[in-house]
Amino acid sequence: MNQILKHVDKNINRLIKDLQILIRQPSVSAKNQGIEECAKLVSNTLKKSGIPSEILRLKKGVAPIVFGHVRSKKNPNKTLLFYNHYDVQPVEPLELWEDDPFSGKIRGNKIFGRGSADDKGELITRIKAVESFLKITGDVPCNIKFVIEGEEEIGSTNIEAYLKRFRKKFSCDGVIWEFGYVDSKNRPIIGLGMKGLLYVELSIKESIRDAHSSLAVIIKNPAWRLVDALKTLQDSSGKILIKDWYREVTPFSKSDLKLLGKEPFDENSFKKEYGIKGFVNDKRGLEIKKALAGDPTCNIAGLVSGYTLDGAKTVLPSSALVKIDFRLVPNMDPKKQLARLQKHLKQNGFSDVKIKMYHGEAAARTNPSDPFVAQIKEAARESFGDFVVNVSNAGTGPMHSFVNVLGAPCVSIGSTYMFSRIHSPNEFARIDLLRKTTKCICLIMDKFSKHD
Amino acid sequence: MNQILKHVDKNINRLIKDLQILIRQPSVSAKNQGIEECAKLVSNTLKKSGIPSEILRLKKGVAPIVFGHVRSKKNPNKTLLFYNHYDVQPVEPLELWEDDPFSGKIRGNKIFGRGSADDKGELITRIKAVESFLKITGDVPCNIKFVIEGEEEIGSTNIEAYLKRFRKKFSCDGVIWEFGYVDSKNRPIIGLGMKGLLYVELSIKESIRDAHSSLAVIIKNPAWRLVDALKTLQDSSGKILIKDWYREVTPFSKSDLKLLGKEPFDENSFKKEYGIKGFVNDKRGLEIKKALAGDPTCNIAGLVSGYTLDGAKTVLPSSALVKIDFRLVPNMDPKKQLARLQKHLKQNGFSDVKIKMYHGEAAARTNPSDPFVAQIKEAARESFGDFVVNVSNAGTGPMHSFVNVLGAPCVSIGSTYMFSRIHSPNEFARIDLLRKTTKCICLIMDKFSKHD
Repeated sequence: MNQILKHVDKNINRLIKDLQILIRQPSVSAKNQGIEECAKLVSNTLKKSGIPSEILRLKKGVAPIVFGHVRSKKNPNKTLLFYNHYDVQPVEPLELWEDDPFSGKIRGNKIFGRGSADDKGELITRIKAVESFLKITGDVPCNIKFVIEGEEEIGSTNIEAYLKRFRKKFSCDGVIWEFGYVDSKNRPIIGLGMKGLLYVELSIKESIRDAHSSLAVIIKNPAWRLVDALKTLQDSSGKILIKDWYREVTPFSKSDLKLLGKEPFDENSFKKEYGIKGFVNDKRGLEIKKALAGDPTCNIAGLVSGYTLDGAKTVLPSSALVKIDFRLVPNMDPKKQLARLQKHLKQNGFSDVKIKMYHGEAAARTNPSDPFVAQIKEAARESFGDFVVNVSNAGTGPMHSFVNVLGAPCVSIGSTYMFSRIHSPNEFARIDLLRKTTKCICLIMDKFSKHD
Repeated sequence: MNQILKHVDKNINRLIKDLQILIRQPSVSAKNQGIEECAKLVSNTLKKSGIPSEILRLKKGVAPIVFGHVRSKKNPNKTLLFYNHYDVQPVEPLELWEDDPFSGKIRGNKIFGRGSADDKGELITRIKAVESFLKITGDVPCNIKFVIEGEEEIGSTNIEAYLKRFRKKFSCDGVIWEFGYVDSKNRPIIGLGMKGLLYVELSIKESIRDAHSSLAVIIKNPAWRLVDALKTLQDSSGKILIKDWYREVTPFSKSDLKLLGKEPFDENSFKKEYGIKGFVNDKRGLEIKKALAGDPTCNIAGLVSGYTLDGAKTVLPSSALVKIDFRLVPNMDPKKQLARLQKHLKQNGFSDVKIKMYHGEAAARTNPSDPFVAQIKEAARESFGDFVVNVSNAGTGPMHSFVNVLGAPCVSIGSTYMFSRIHSPNEFARIDLLRKTTKCICLIMDKFSKHD
């Protein structure tokens, strides 16, 4: 094992270079930018590391999945699957980036660029861990599978269909999730759950063209109408006012609360990082951790109407639009919640508000007493010296589909420093954490192969 | 007089060409685009028509005023002043234009382009009217002055300072306003007043950078905060909720109401033009005309936060912004209203909302019984066959400053078809109306010079 870990150290420059190559290939799924090119690049990256790979397609118009598969000679009865994604978030607002978003520029211990952390940085740690095993032992300690999708940042719309279609090909005994945070004390956060998501766009059109704003006395203003509609969705404390929204939500169990109590959260670092004075509703301590793991949200992700550039334009807009992401917790069904939203708008007199659903995903949580969790804890302690267990990530991923279709436990662990600015300008990955995580993945492979 | 009006007909192709040249020179004051170039072009256009011209400057950073002055040989004791502007509104949204916004393209009876109607089209009718007098009689029937500013579309911020500085140079006995609408029955609308305006931008910054939207459970969302703040400003019927907002507003006089009753408003054409089913609060008939002339507004002209492009981005925005134009009616002081807005936000707990004032202008109305109004009515009847008197335009202009500083009555009359899409994509001017208005201006000059 030591030789393998030493090879990871020796191989770090190659890891960095391969990550830079991946960053330099834009792959913005929201804009269908570079998706096919990136899938090919990722497939070749797997092959270069000795991992046989193929590109799987569900149907036309759907981003392909890059599949990788190495059979273990000595232990062909146990399979570990790495789930990752090669697509990235849009880069806007462009003017806030210090470098080109696809530069892969290195400054000290950091590699900058969209996808450097989320998720190309995580992907490269998995690939390089397998590469080191292959280089040193000529084998892997268990079968390894890679499922690398291209639509994660637009809600993994087709992952469930892919999982069902290739259920046999993807069959496995454990899934390492696509990302994992590392806290400010350099402890990896072992994540056992993900929130769900319902992403919708509400739009209102009042007239067929913008008008001179002097006409606001007689032509209805869609921006005002949208403000009125929004105000019915949530009160100023953040409580969602849609009928039955929280109906299926259950409180935390005692063991969950115990885990939450142990989770670290550095309020001051967090405040400094985001330049904020306090938290929503002046939350502190356990309240913050409970909110991150278990509070549903109704977040305005985008809002636009009329003239938004510099200066003053006296215009009456013809339309207004809002993008909302609702985070969901276990037992909340995205389709049911969407129906509740539709009913709410109708019953409150907003039948003129059009709803477009971008995607829906249910929440998932893995049982903290699953043996797979114990193996990962061991590996994390050996590579990082310490770790934290997280009941549920505040973010969303298609974990629910993996658990449901493949029937395997899913755990997230990775290299992403918690202030890595993922989804924001100047996203970066930390080289020290990429290295440690690659070693941790090697150790997970080893421990996972030794236990039943 | 007949010879002069015939010359206007003969000269119409020259008018069209000169208007195209003016349209093709962008002059967007909101972006400081082409302002100096357009001032020079306008000054040369005056000179080409035989009107001595100079460019006046207040101070650095302020758009110049193009001044034109023709002394009358036979009647040097009476002066008519044309107030116009050479700047135009921004052209966004670009994708809705059928041609380049600065093309000056002709299709049948229409000339398209930003400024074709507002205000380069109006300006050219005044210039060509003077040109025809000069060509045929070698003189003008009274002194003629042109005051053509470059900041009308950004609130005429410096017109009052210009008027005060050049009070003597600009002294006059009557002002023809920069624009005038023509209704769908081809009747010019003789406008006696303008509403005032308070244009502000409210902004909220919650954090120093955009964050992953999963953090919405703990980081405040500025878009929600803005929605909360906006909702305190106006109720869903359009009533402004700021304390004392309507305090100085007086009801219409009986004679105003009589004039309003006679004003035409073609509800069906209007609905068809804007593709709307009804009016604000289901207004009809006199209520619509009263609103246009006398209702203060709180219009959302622009609203933006977060990700506004296509697709779904799960982002928690760091800031949110709204542009609001409040239309004011006589006796409302923009500065006083701004102070009321500031106080309102503070008292409602929104001290974190930053207010930026773009401009303020008071409303103005000219007395319907002023002899100047009678002269214009006569000219309008002779050139158009009919006319309408309008108590107050729904829009805003610095009429208040002219009335106050120059002490002359101001009346608006012009060539702008009421559905000319000014301030919107595909703005156009109608050639038949440009021709009739040029003749009408000739007749106004004649009648004005003959009366005391």
